[in-house]
Amino acid sequence: MDTTIGKTTGTWINHDRIAESLAHLRERRPLVHNITNFVVMNFTANTLLALGASPAMVHAPEEVQAFVAISGALVVNIGTLDSAFVMSMSLAARQAVATGIPWVLDPVGAGATAFRTRTSLDLLALAPNVLRANASEVLAIAGTSGHMSKGVDATISSRHAVEAARHLARASRTIVAVTGAVDYVISADHGVAIEGGSPMSQLVTGTGCAATACVGAFLAVEKDPVLAAASGLAVLKAAAAIAARCAEGPGAFQSALLDALHRVSRDDLAEHVALRSV
Amino acid sequence: MDTTIGKTTGTWINHDRIAESLAHLRERRPLVHNITNFVVMNFTANTLLALGASPAMVHAPEEVQAFVAISGALVVNIGTLDSAFVMSMSLAARQAVATGIPWVLDPVGAGATAFRTRTSLDLLALAPNVLRANASEVLAIAGTSGHMSKGVDATISSRHAVEAARHLARASRTIVAVTGAVDYVISADHGVAIEGGSPMSQLVTGTGCAATACVGAFLAVEKDPVLAAASGLAVLKAAAAIAARCAEGPGAFQSALLDALHRVSRDDLAEHVALRSV
Amino acid sequence: MDTTIGKTTGTWINHDRIAESLAHLRERRPLVHNITNFVVMNFTANTLLALGASPAMVHAPEEVQAFVAISGALVVNIGTLDSAFVMSMSLAARQAVATGIPWVLDPVGAGATAFRTRTSLDLLALAPNVLRANASEVLAIAGTSGHMSKGVDATISSRHAVEAARHLARASRTIVAVTGAVDYVISADHGVAIEGGSPMSQLVTGTGCAATACVGAFLAVEKDPVLAAASGLAVLKAAAAIAARCAEGPGAFQSALLDALHRVSRDDLAEHVALRSV
Repeated sequence: MDTTIGKTTGTWINHDRIAESLAHLRERRPLVHNITNFVVMNFTANTLLALGASPAMVHAPEEVQAFVAISGALVVNIGTLDSAFVMSMSLAARQAVATGIPWVLDPVGAGATAFRTRTSLDLLALAPNVLRANASEVLAIAGTSGHMSKGVDATISSRHAVEAARHLARASRTIVAVTGAVDYVISADHGVAIEGGSPMSQLVTGTGCAATACVGAFLAVEKDPVLAAASGLAVLKAAAAIAARCAEGPGAFQSALLDALHRVSRDDLAEHVALRSV
Repeated sequence: MDTTIGKTTGTWINHDRIAESLAHLRERRPLVHNITNFVVMNFTANTLLALGASPAMVHAPEEVQAFVAISGALVVNIGTLDSAFVMSMSLAARQAVATGIPWVLDPVGAGATAFRTRTSLDLLALAPNVLRANASEVLAIAGTSGHMSKGVDATISSRHAVEAARHLARASRTIVAVTGAVDYVISADHGVAIEGGSPMSQLVTGTGCAATACVGAFLAVEKDPVLAAASGLAVLKAAAAIAARCAEGPGAFQSALLDALHRVSRDDLAEHVALRSV
Repeated sequence: MDTTIGKTTGTWINHDRIAESLAHLRERRPLVHNITNFVVMNFTANTLLALGASPAMVHAPEEVQAFVAISGALVVNIGTLDSAFVMSMSLAARQAVATGIPWVLDPVGAGATAFRTRTSLDLLALAPNVLRANASEVLAIAGTSGHMSKGVDATISSRHAVEAARHLARASRTIVAVTGAVDYVISADHGVAIEGGSPMSQLVTGTGCAATACVGAFLAVEKDPVLAAASGLAVLKAAAAIAARCAEGPGAFQSALLDALHRVSRDDLAEHVALRSV
């Protein structure tokens, strides 16, 4: 699976390039500032540590701006949002944009309630470098769905959100990463599909949030947001495939996913993840 | 252990009936809305996913009512309560009752402080379909204890709270599920004892909260709250018994509990759980 | 490694004395009140359960004082602080001091932002029995660093903070426990170094917070804060060493650490932990 993608558009994404980004990440160990939800804070922090980054969860309005300033990237995830967290997210995102710190938005449950959709749109207007979402959330944000999401879980295939993602990428000047059985990283004019992983990821809470955090970690070391997003998603898919080989159930899988993430190699990427242009 | 219980009162609970409810739950994959404590949010979500439900943790006053409306059941757990969460719990519970969404209350630590006891009584007045608690909490809420709880852990056997549970069930028109080494599901005029499980459950935080969440998931697919509560508790006890067989300690047990919950079968229920009338 | 330390200063710390404290802890099962961060609440509670204590996470201003009053010790950790939590921490700490309940402070990320440094100093002024921190945090609080911490992770060796810890211990009349590859428990006039553990602890979020919680649990059963702190840190280091022997990665290690903590023995302490005066 050693295809190189997107050369004509100035981006080239293949297993070697992703492995190189991963080596940079592990060497530089970037500080990743997360304003995320209560459900996944522990798992997200452990995911980032296993990947090779240095995570911090910081949400107080007294310090989010100062903390963004010392971080390599910012991850904003609205999973258990309330008005105080949304204010902190907004402060942090504005600071990130003002000072050139890359950031990624995870609009958990957009479409499930008006509050989530509106908050997602407000944060998207602050220009995240990457929007990482499931298909239901992408459709809700793009406004192209009559479709109702089921709480925070996607009810449709990521494939069905690729066109909406392209629309969003153009309208919002961001990269849209739609994850599912196949992940898609979509920019205004090209895209990458990432195949692999394990259906067992759906049985563990926060694997989508972990994907967002991985994208954030790569944004801290890789300027091209398409490559950063593809790297984060590909590395996590490779780890999931490795973890699924020996896990008897979702409890063992969650633990094995961290173990695999800590040691995933260039060969693992080539063996477990396929990349193609879309 | 194939006894059928409660036929004379119109309820019949046996392993087959519980297995049938579990099959419905796995097939329908109900959305379960949780307003729960920070300690167990991750474990509760993973418990619900392993069981076959779709969990969401949502607490903002801007959206709890809208979220209840799209959910199959509501779980309210006061473990790390503060005044903002209590307001959200009250809003959500009122909405659930108004629209016929079943809900379950977990009064964590009732009796440990006046704030917890008062909040528990206020929420109980909103008529949960099931109250799931340990023996200390049931005695505190029933007002029949001179007895002091030890923080959030029960200090007495569930058996000693059966009479208080019966009193509460009659006074509050709810089903009371008292959990411990033996679980009891008590209605105004009958009751079921559920035996099995593992003492290792006491070494993992949130297994009581997980029991409440399982009851909530079954309430979403089963109209009879006695059967729903018994099903949730029996399935979790069977999973605990399976998990304890191979776990060397509480860390391994927590993980194995999720694995077992994901695959628990009718035969597992019959092998690991005994049901009897009380 | 059966050295006895500190006899000349009235304190004697060796493997037997630590094993005795651990036996007391397991027998008395003290209630430990935690006001801690969202990232580690679950892992901290499971750590305390595995150790043999009874954990509770309680932060509402309506009840923190009442809860301190029924607890054996208080653990205050500022990891995901905001102004509401800081107020609760202050209320609880004042109550602890007023009623003679021992407490331990974990100033997570002191030095990373002015808000964290200031909050740490404000809480330190309330006279915790033990301050448990990493080297970066100790230097920031002692005001002896031009040095910048990296988020919440230490960037320097614990050894380099021993002098600052001694200064702090004298100025603040507290015991300072600096943790890292080697842990140091420093009082105004003597100190203990604790060697052992595993570098894998740095790959799991909240192992520092778990150390603080273990110190808190021992404070509930052991009057000498130097012995309590050394016991908490030594037992956790022994468990980490045992866990690392079989864990293939950080996911397995986190789980194995709880298993090991649950069964760590006097012989394990002697085999895996070295104690020396500093």
